[in-house]
Amino acid sequence: MTGPCVAQHINHVAIAVKDIAAALAMYRDLFGVGAGAQAVDIADQKVRAVLVRIGGSQVEFIQPTDPNSGVARFIEKRGEGVHHICFEVESLADRLQALKAKGVELIDEKPRHGLSGQIAFLHPRSTGGVLIELVDQDTARR
Amino acid sequence: MTGPCVAQHINHVAIAVKDIAAALAMYRDLFGVGAGAQAVDIADQKVRAVLVRIGGSQVEFIQPTDPNSGVARFIEKRGEGVHHICFEVESLADRLQALKAKGVELIDEKPRHGLSGQIAFLHPRSTGGVLIELVDQDTARR
Repeated sequence: MTGPCVAQHINHVAIAVKDIAAALAMYRDLFGVGAGAQAVDIADQKVRAVLVRIGGSQVEFIQPTDPNSGVARFIEKRGEGVHHICFEVESLADRLQALKAKGVELIDEKPRHGLSGQIAFLHPRSTGGVLIELVDQDTARR
Repeated sequence: MTGPCVAQHINHVAIAVKDIAAALAMYRDLFGVGAGAQAVDIADQKVRAVLVRIGGSQVEFIQPTDPNSGVARFIEKRGEGVHHICFEVESLADRLQALKAKGVELIDEKPRHGLSGQIAFLHPRSTGGVLIELVDQDTARR
């Protein structure tokens, strides 16, 4: 039985940046976080990304690796800044169907593999202008 | 002795909205959070605001109450969306001076009272395009 979608935790806040090494250096210098964090390429999303732990949550930096990627267009249009927020939920596949039944526009109809685990994005048209990622909490990387 | 500034926790992610009641209703409906949350007026900032707990962190909704407020201008320029991120730090007053000594442009030179505790904002020019709020963790509301 599918219960309501309940956001259990803020897994991360993602920030689009032009230079992930520069962003990591700045956060280490100013906020003392991210020592040893290693960025990885996510080829299908045309980005490099890294998760930086801050207490019980994380900041994710994402850098476009292709000028035609969504993140590159985001930076071109709005400048560097917050790109999305990721909530942990139980039973993501069921939750997506429940959200769709409420009329939420899904970017991903089914969970897919992402840097943070099994994830899916909701369209900001349905979520007050904020791009929301959901990650299945059983798979969530923290 | 003043040690480095270390972000201990993401206290909240703030989202600028036109209608705080509508935002709360949407988050209750879609994400099962914010039941019983009560918005308050913050007269000197010309906003209404509310903190919604999500696991160990929070989302804050902020609605302008004056068309000349910074948040109203933000929404006019960029639409509803993420407005700032708030990190908890130790000994905020000392940390602000340490950040200033590193060349960070402070919006608030000293801690002041905010919805989340004793807070101060850093200018996004110094923090990669993201407006960062710091809250003294001894005073932080969670």
